Amino acid sequence: MRSDQRRNDERRPVSFELDFSIYAEGSVLISVGHTKVICMATVEDKAPNWMRGEGKGWITAEYQMLPRATGIRNPRESLRGKVSGRTMEIQRLIGRALRSVVDLEKLGERSILVDCDVIQADGGTRTAAITGGFIALKLAIDRLLKDGTLVEDPIKEYLAAISVGIVNDEILLDLNYEEDLNASVDLNLVMTESGRIVEIQATGEEATFSEDELLKMIAFGKKGIVELIQAQKEAMAGR
Amino acid sequence: MRSDQRRNDERRPVSFELDFSIYAEGSVLISVGHTKVICMATVEDKAPNWMRGEGKGWITAEYQMLPRATGIRNPRESLRGKVSGRTMEIQRLIGRALRSVVDLEKLGERSILVDCDVIQADGGTRTAAITGGFIALKLAIDRLLKDGTLVEDPIKEYLAAISVGIVNDEILLDLNYEEDLNASVDLNLVMTESGRIVEIQATGEEATFSEDELLKMIAFGKKGIVELIQAQKEAMAGR
Amino acid sequence: MRSDQRRNDERRPVSFELDFSIYAEGSVLISVGHTKVICMATVEDKAPNWMRGEGKGWITAEYQMLPRATGIRNPRESLRGKVSGRTMEIQRLIGRALRSVVDLEKLGERSILVDCDVIQADGGTRTAAITGGFIALKLAIDRLLKDGTLVEDPIKEYLAAISVGIVNDEILLDLNYEEDLNASVDLNLVMTESGRIVEIQATGEEATFSEDELLKMIAFGKKGIVELIQAQKEAMAGR
Amino acid sequence: MRSDQRRNDERRPVSFELDFSIYAEGSVLISVGHTKVICMATVEDKAPNWMRGEGKGWITAEYQMLPRATGIRNPRESLRGKVSGRTMEIQRLIGRALRSVVDLEKLGERSILVDCDVIQADGGTRTAAITGGFIALKLAIDRLLKDGTLVEDPIKEYLAAISVGIVNDEILLDLNYEEDLNASVDLNLVMTESGRIVEIQATGEEATFSEDELLKMIAFGKKGIVELIQAQKEAMAGR
Amino acid sequence: MRSDQRRNDERRPVSFELDFSIYAEGSVLISVGHTKVICMATVEDKAPNWMRGEGKGWITAEYQMLPRATGIRNPRESLRGKVSGRTMEIQRLIGRALRSVVDLEKLGERSILVDCDVIQADGGTRTAAITGGFIALKLAIDRLLKDGTLVEDPIKEYLAAISVGIVNDEILLDLNYEEDLNASVDLNLVMTESGRIVEIQATGEEATFSEDELLKMIAFGKKGIVELIQAQKEAMAGR
Amino acid sequence: MRSDQRRNDERRPVSFELDFSIYAEGSVLISVGHTKVICMATVEDKAPNWMRGEGKGWITAEYQMLPRATGIRNPRESLRGKVSGRTMEIQRLIGRALRSVVDLEKLGERSILVDCDVIQADGGTRTAAITGGFIALKLAIDRLLKDGTLVEDPIKEYLAAISVGIVNDEILLDLNYEEDLNASVDLNLVMTESGRIVEIQATGEEATFSEDELLKMIAFGKKGIVELIQAQKEAMAGR
Repeated sequence: MRSDQRRNDERRPVSFELDFSIYAEGSVLISVGHTKVICMATVEDKAPNWMRGEGKGWITAEYQMLPRATGIRNPRESLRGKVSGRTMEIQRLIGRALRSVVDLEKLGERSILVDCDVIQADGGTRTAAITGGFIALKLAIDRLLKDGTLVEDPIKEYLAAISVGIVNDEILLDLNYEEDLNASVDLNLVMTESGRIVEIQATGEEATFSEDELLKMIAFGKKGIVELIQAQKEAMAGR
Repeated sequence: MRSDQRRNDERRPVSFELDFSIYAEGSVLISVGHTKVICMATVEDKAPNWMRGEGKGWITAEYQMLPRATGIRNPRESLRGKVSGRTMEIQRLIGRALRSVVDLEKLGERSILVDCDVIQADGGTRTAAITGGFIALKLAIDRLLKDGTLVEDPIKEYLAAISVGIVNDEILLDLNYEEDLNASVDLNLVMTESGRIVEIQATGEEATFSEDELLKMIAFGKKGIVELIQAQKEAMAGR
Repeated sequence: MRSDQRRNDERRPVSFELDFSIYAEGSVLISVGHTKVICMATVEDKAPNWMRGEGKGWITAEYQMLPRATGIRNPRESLRGKVSGRTMEIQRLIGRALRSVVDLEKLGERSILVDCDVIQADGGTRTAAITGGFIALKLAIDRLLKDGTLVEDPIKEYLAAISVGIVNDEILLDLNYEEDLNASVDLNLVMTESGRIVEIQATGEEATFSEDELLKMIAFGKKGIVELIQAQKEAMAGR
Repeated sequence: MRSDQRRNDERRPVSFELDFSIYAEGSVLISVGHTKVICMATVEDKAPNWMRGEGKGWITAEYQMLPRATGIRNPRESLRGKVSGRTMEIQRLIGRALRSVVDLEKLGERSILVDCDVIQADGGTRTAAITGGFIALKLAIDRLLKDGTLVEDPIKEYLAAISVGIVNDEILLDLNYEEDLNASVDLNLVMTESGRIVEIQATGEEATFSEDELLKMIAFGKKGIVELIQAQKEAMAGR
Repeated sequence: MRSDQRRNDERRPVSFELDFSIYAEGSVLISVGHTKVICMATVEDKAPNWMRGEGKGWITAEYQMLPRATGIRNPRESLRGKVSGRTMEIQRLIGRALRSVVDLEKLGERSILVDCDVIQADGGTRTAAITGGFIALKLAIDRLLKDGTLVEDPIKEYLAAISVGIVNDEILLDLNYEEDLNASVDLNLVMTESGRIVEIQATGEEATFSEDELLKMIAFGKKGIVELIQAQKEAMAGR
Repeated sequence: MRSDQRRNDERRPVSFELDFSIYAEGSVLISVGHTKVICMATVEDKAPNWMRGEGKGWITAEYQMLPRATGIRNPRESLRGKVSGRTMEIQRLIGRALRSVVDLEKLGERSILVDCDVIQADGGTRTAAITGGFIALKLAIDRLLKDGTLVEDPIKEYLAAISVGIVNDEILLDLNYEEDLNASVDLNLVMTESGRIVEIQATGEEATFSEDELLKMIAFGKKGIVELIQAQKEAMAGR
């Protein structure tokens, strides 16, 4: 039995506080267990410089943790004067994930930047940022559709992400911080509503894993993502 | 009449969500009108290097705004690689303010760092950070008293801060963003429960003011601070 | 009696070496006691990017101390790769102060940058930088008037600044370094010839002060500023 | 048929120039088609600070491309003053991969840093860096075994890495630059001699893929890695 | 006798591997004894911003050492976030040297950037970078002549560089690392085919030298440069 | 005839304002024509970390120009966040020059840092910094001798520096800014009282020079240095 009484293939409760910000074009506070991430989408009416004139849009993300989002306080990256490799890796991942379900030509020459700020971290912050970031993005695009800026929805399908890991030889879904610390293998899966994979990253830290274990982890992840997308839809329906 | 129907000497509603974080030794989400600031106090069991061995403690603060805390998104200071003058000026102010009501010798050789992260900004973020930061600090110190680390309370009295300004020749208490933008004079007042001044900064931007106007602004500020300290005490009592 | 034999409300001798530089459009070496600041104004024939086309000008300042301007050498900020919070706070203050006495529309679309470099520091460097910076600015504008670039003087009135503090419960005017180190309250006052306040910053470091003390400090400061503006005018007259 | 006449499951020729440096404890110039990477291992007789006293060693990697390793010159990261997210992501990957086949306790309290400098880039630089980096690491450890510093070989098994992608709906092994540019899905596989997975990263850029495609890509990658490890062993045997 | 059996006025063997890169417009791997430098010239079809419209071109250089180019590994400048004074001094020297033998008006409004990356360092890396950098530059310009972009050769004459030093009161040509470490005086000479000096830098480190010693060092250097230019010409002839 | 009526081998008037600072252990304001440099020596009672325990001292220098030291204002390096290559090159040169005339063992385990801040620049700032920096160093060492910290003078002999250049085919001593701008060859000579060379740097910018021209330039430089050392001695004698 896991420390928080979950079964191995059971994810933590998720909730979405939509329209969290009075300013952002789309915003949500997502909670996954104790992990809380504020996602705010900002729309800009021009494409990035490097792709001007292609008639397409672009989507990026930025990710950061508040210094005391964790048990031990981390120094601010702004005061250290540089962003860590971990931060950069995560914000590149979120951006790629969000772009994969958007038809960038239908978006037209505009940019959407999704800020994901972790207020409290108990494992799975990057997957929560993707799951919540998708909702912030969708709310921003819904607004563009509603005010007539866009006539056709560029979003192709829903998107969510979850982690799976191997801890003491057991495969566990949706690791919390303590489980993550003890995991020998860590997998992040980003998947769409139709069950297509957007990104899979499976990593052994001082450990390896078999192809068979990989398949089992993917199966766990798929189950979690189906449920998360269900929760996303319910939140959007209740708006 | 002000845009949000307030009288000139009327401050915005304030609320405190205590123990906002599961990790920080003291934490609060303060809301002042639409302005929201998360304040988290982190206690470290040693004094800063430069004052080791003096038998005294130290208190500092850090301040930051989320990129989309405002109507227009601001680039992250971590990605720009440096902190703005405005940010530094504000975090130095918060630190000085908090230190003024703490007996640093009674605190002993420990450091408390109060992180003030602005989630949403509608004017008065620095004063909200002081008013909320004091509560986060007090909660952290209460914990040290409760667990026996401290036997005597180092906090000398309550502390709060508020802004006053001159807008179209009218003196207004607790400016919101729009009023702040149009203010010719901007005053920030930090004051204690016993009515003593900790810091006063009054600034004309392309404008000046008379000593008489200064006194009227101080009177408005005092009224606001008396009310804010009342609200702080009610929040603490309801815990 | 103060260490340098001054009465409590007596400021240090001030002198101005006008046209200190062969290059700058306006320049002065101001000495206030042992404090020496070189102020050089540079005129550029365009407004900053963010205010182009508004038909107005802008004035900013930069402040720095030579590494050995003080008893103990400070590392250069250029080698540390970043500017301290203190430096930024001071140069923002100087800029605001100078702008307050200039009609920016009469200045037209041009920028004036006043560099204040502290050669020797014995307390009161920021107020000396304002008092001297005003003279450098005035000399630069006089040159624009003389060569016909400007036809109407954009300077509205004279400006000076001085510090006041509470040391061992005594209110003292124009603190030197040693007094500043021992002050419980430190006030900087920026005021115009007509007695209007431009900026007042009063700060208790681990201390507080009453409204009555504030008023007495302001009275001391006013006296000093009247004298400083007199000295500025004499220096300009002797040119 | 691919532009360089390869079959879809055919990798590019690989070669190893062992002991490329007269200084490094282990070094190799690996060529994979036109891609050339210099890998140099540096041994230091102490563990990193954060793990001192644990009786274990540590292995990290650094990765960089010469500015003109590519068709278009890239500015140096040293002159831009910061390292890109891509560089950080890759060097973290190489380090994790190398650590996975080393018994860090047998290595003892020492650090090995493997520098991977790309001299010429035609796709697959990160996988070439892992395949070559392993050889540099092995040469450095062989030296420690030979001179008696180590008595037991900490290397558990051989390790190599290769890329697979989907280009125009065809699965291709070991993409060159042009193929990589046109790939809708890009997979990097790191695997050991015994067929265990160390890391798998599969990414759709504005595209997604099915689980079935994932399995086929893994099969292609496994074939390539078996061959690469064969080539590594031949190179080491010929020493 | 010197440690590598050379006479005092004997330089180390030099070799040139022309067209080392498949991408750069001009490239060479120069070896001078154990010192190896990759030089790659990149041609850009515009002058730098500061000299646009003058009808002239410009040539610059960048220099860097791989971290393990030396016996002891040096941290990467990209990770330290800044370039050392030594690196800047050297790349400015290389740029000046190359510009001195090129008619910048004949080059037209284009820029050539010569990257000099030291793969292995055994003394004399800056002079090897100049000697090799000239060849990379010449190959790039030959390509511009061959494809008709240029009709007249802007290169005025050949150029090479060599070091001379005083070690234990003996004047030695072309110091290796060990000799350089023990030198009391270090001279770098850059000279053209016609025997004209481009740059001479002679430096005593905690030592001085007479004018007579300077003349003898120059004589040694001239001999070396005549031989190096001969070797450059043979390499170009064998292409 | 030169623009300021000097003969080709005539240097500009030099003056020394000794003990310019009330804080620095040694200080001087040197003027060479319109060029003015403040040199302040700071003594620290320990050797740098990298040479602790060797029983020797060390001397370094830092160099900077005030932003408006020149006709056109230069941005501050502290605000740009990095020091230019030119600044680094010059401060390394000044440090080497000063060390060459000091017996570092007699100095004992202490460091002297000489700050050279250019207040006004009209050519020859680096040579003025060496000539003035030597005086600041000597004054600091004289103080150590006077107070008994040192018993034997570690200064071996006087030191000065001057520039020479070729302008319109004429060899000129001690170039001012305008001459420097038009020079095809620029030589800086650092020499001791006994006529020994410490450093010689001769550079053609898009130009070359013959050995014969080099010798003539050295002769001019020697003449200037003899005179400068005479002036240094007179200034010291008049103290």
